[in-house]
Amino acid sequence: MNNKRVGIIGAGPSGLAQLRAFEALKDKGIEIPEIVCFEKQDNWGGMWNYSWRTGVGKYGEPVHGSMYKYLWSNGPKECLEFSDYSFDEHFKKPISSYPPRPVLFDYIQGRIKKSNAREYIRFNTTVRWVSFDESTKRFKVVLDDLKSNETYEEEFDYLVTASGHFSTPNMPHFDGIEDFPGHVMHAHDFRGADQFKNQKLLLIGSSYSAEDIGVQCFKHGAESVTLSYRSNPIGVEWPEGIKELPLVTHFDGPTVHFSNGESEDFDAVVMCTGYQHKFPFLPSELRLKTKNNLYPDNIYKGIFFNDNPQLIYLGMQDQYYTFNMFDAQAWVARDYMMGTLELPSKEERRKDIDHWLAKHDAMEDALDSVDFQSAYIKDLLELSDYPDFNVDKVAVMFKEWLQDKEENILTYRDKTYKSVVTGTEAVEHHTEWMDELDDSKERYLKFNKKVEELTS
Amino acid sequence: MNNKRVGIIGAGPSGLAQLRAFEALKDKGIEIPEIVCFEKQDNWGGMWNYSWRTGVGKYGEPVHGSMYKYLWSNGPKECLEFSDYSFDEHFKKPISSYPPRPVLFDYIQGRIKKSNAREYIRFNTTVRWVSFDESTKRFKVVLDDLKSNETYEEEFDYLVTASGHFSTPNMPHFDGIEDFPGHVMHAHDFRGADQFKNQKLLLIGSSYSAEDIGVQCFKHGAESVTLSYRSNPIGVEWPEGIKELPLVTHFDGPTVHFSNGESEDFDAVVMCTGYQHKFPFLPSELRLKTKNNLYPDNIYKGIFFNDNPQLIYLGMQDQYYTFNMFDAQAWVARDYMMGTLELPSKEERRKDIDHWLAKHDAMEDALDSVDFQSAYIKDLLELSDYPDFNVDKVAVMFKEWLQDKEENILTYRDKTYKSVVTGTEAVEHHTEWMDELDDSKERYLKFNKKVEELTS
Repeated sequence: MNNKRVGIIGAGPSGLAQLRAFEALKDKGIEIPEIVCFEKQDNWGGMWNYSWRTGVGKYGEPVHGSMYKYLWSNGPKECLEFSDYSFDEHFKKPISSYPPRPVLFDYIQGRIKKSNAREYIRFNTTVRWVSFDESTKRFKVVLDDLKSNETYEEEFDYLVTASGHFSTPNMPHFDGIEDFPGHVMHAHDFRGADQFKNQKLLLIGSSYSAEDIGVQCFKHGAESVTLSYRSNPIGVEWPEGIKELPLVTHFDGPTVHFSNGESEDFDAVVMCTGYQHKFPFLPSELRLKTKNNLYPDNIYKGIFFNDNPQLIYLGMQDQYYTFNMFDAQAWVARDYMMGTLELPSKEERRKDIDHWLAKHDAMEDALDSVDFQSAYIKDLLELSDYPDFNVDKVAVMFKEWLQDKEENILTYRDKTYKSVVTGTEAVEHHTEWMDELDDSKERYLKFNKKVEELTS
Repeated sequence: MNNKRVGIIGAGPSGLAQLRAFEALKDKGIEIPEIVCFEKQDNWGGMWNYSWRTGVGKYGEPVHGSMYKYLWSNGPKECLEFSDYSFDEHFKKPISSYPPRPVLFDYIQGRIKKSNAREYIRFNTTVRWVSFDESTKRFKVVLDDLKSNETYEEEFDYLVTASGHFSTPNMPHFDGIEDFPGHVMHAHDFRGADQFKNQKLLLIGSSYSAEDIGVQCFKHGAESVTLSYRSNPIGVEWPEGIKELPLVTHFDGPTVHFSNGESEDFDAVVMCTGYQHKFPFLPSELRLKTKNNLYPDNIYKGIFFNDNPQLIYLGMQDQYYTFNMFDAQAWVARDYMMGTLELPSKEERRKDIDHWLAKHDAMEDALDSVDFQSAYIKDLLELSDYPDFNVDKVAVMFKEWLQDKEENILTYRDKTYKSVVTGTEAVEHHTEWMDELDDSKERYLKFNKKVEELTS
């Protein structure tokens, strides 16, 4: 018996994982707490719920999504597969290893649609303010119903913050950028390559956004793509038309100067300069304050806010693992909320965090990072009954993927991998990624195999 | 003696007017309440504090400003002149009637810099949540110090909401807009015409933003400018290169279809579709809920929230009058907070609001609107010691201005008007507006008169 109330902020992959975790218990006939999930958008899926809007949404709230058209998974789907809901179960046939956004969105929805979990979600509802009442040990949450423009308050015993951390741009200033005549945007506002056709595009940054937006714009007809890095270049073999330069020193009209003395004119600038962990609805004593890394400080097992573990954070890590990591976290969080998992003392938790932070500090390269997050996932899997999966094999796939990208950034998405959940080998997509300009689910699923004579 | 605390939200023209109103008393040796003004941006000036940023600012808060490069006043400066701080006092010489943004920003700052009012302002500070305590009759305000990422709470007897209403875009959806290949933005994110050079630009809207952005883009080299109206066209004589079409029905790739059956391809779309009155920090029972109009309901004298007049709104009207209207409001609000102006009962206030709403409903055209807001200003001027100015003469100027625009939308800014504060005649700007591509204060103030041989 459990008459607690659980509030979940966000119905993206992390929030939905939390709902699914409770549903899995319910399926076994176990009574679960009262759950309310608040979602700012009008549909679930978080980042995967593409919107054409930028800036603010229909009701004037900052747009959550950084999703763009023509986004294809940038890692093998076999590395993110739910271990309780396989790609085979969803699609009924093998598909390729790097599906486009609509296909992954479909997959995410498939699992959650199996239950009535949608009924837990209040859409178009944003959290305005949270406070913790020390006397009742409950959270008071001020909600804002965006459609009706009415605010109201509810209380929860547990609060799950699953609001993501790729929504609030980090946008540095460069001298002279005010007078750059072309368009300047953050990757958060990038909605697809079309508008940069035949343009000379500068991307500032050297992480996934820069790499992926750069390659997409090259593929879709930008005249040239230049990536500017602060510390280290991405360093793969770029095709003619894409290049890397060191950091921008300043702008002078349309001309951009780089720290190696080079300068060049550009038509547009996209800042791929990352995101802030931002929780405007939380008082500072409950806020997770961290840069984007694989082990944010002050959350035990990467989940429980150490000062108050009734406050739970999901998916706040930088990510190799994604959907399956959110699941592993959500199952552990669920067991704590159900009272079936006890947490050690605050001091013990602190020691555990420090232990992980020390390992985190010792990492030297991307391979180490993969091993680090794999070890973290294994640690989580031991704590709950989330279906075990072969993490070591996934780690090997991540390392091969890193290698594939280094070998050829334009063709790595044509590779295939083998599921650790079902053992199924992915099939090749019917069209090579560089020739595939249509990312619709319909076209993606239309053909089973590569067909040379395909007409779109 | 007055030991009350006053909180002011926003240090734009309205918030600064409130500070100035109190300073005017202090100058007379009268003790004033403790004042704290909260400003989200790192400088004062509100909309007039231009930022190159769009979307969110440095600390991840929605960008306040909708200001763009090359914005020149779109009404005569003589219609907005502070009656306690003339343009003559500030510039020491006559200037033209339509100055560019940096010149107006300079003017706004000039008055407030005369005192130490800057010390009242906490910059980089945003209001997260407000509640009213019925027992203490005070507002509890949760503040967020954006730089330190720390929240804290303070209490106030009066809360002045001067956060503006041209910051949160209203952005309708049109069928097919998701697949329009060019850039789609709201006027809120427009930062200047440069990026639209040689482009075919569609502006959706028929109010000031559409008119002004359209004319600016035409002036700065757009290939063509098309304005789309919902109900009525702006209807002035457009030069070749600008035209008006009725409402967009849908998008089909780069092609836009209009309700008269026409269709055309465009490179970019700017939605000049207005703004929402948005107060996310206020509980719904304290929120002003209104469309943009000349007399929002539920605020007595356009200022005092009728359900709780300790909550004060400044500048929430649609505007012919601007700076001088904010002043007139702020002086009245000040006298109420000082206890020297008593408000009638809630029922009496309601009657007064209804009286104005009836007049508002009876308006038929723009001339009526000018008269309506002029009458409103006169009503305010009777309530405080804000220096009287000849409102009737200003009303005449507004009507001439409407006529000037109708006669020639490209040259109306070359006209000059006479100050009702000092009697000074404006001088012609040294360069005709259509030929003036430099909006800097330096160039604007460099020459006293029109000089044909000017070299930039």
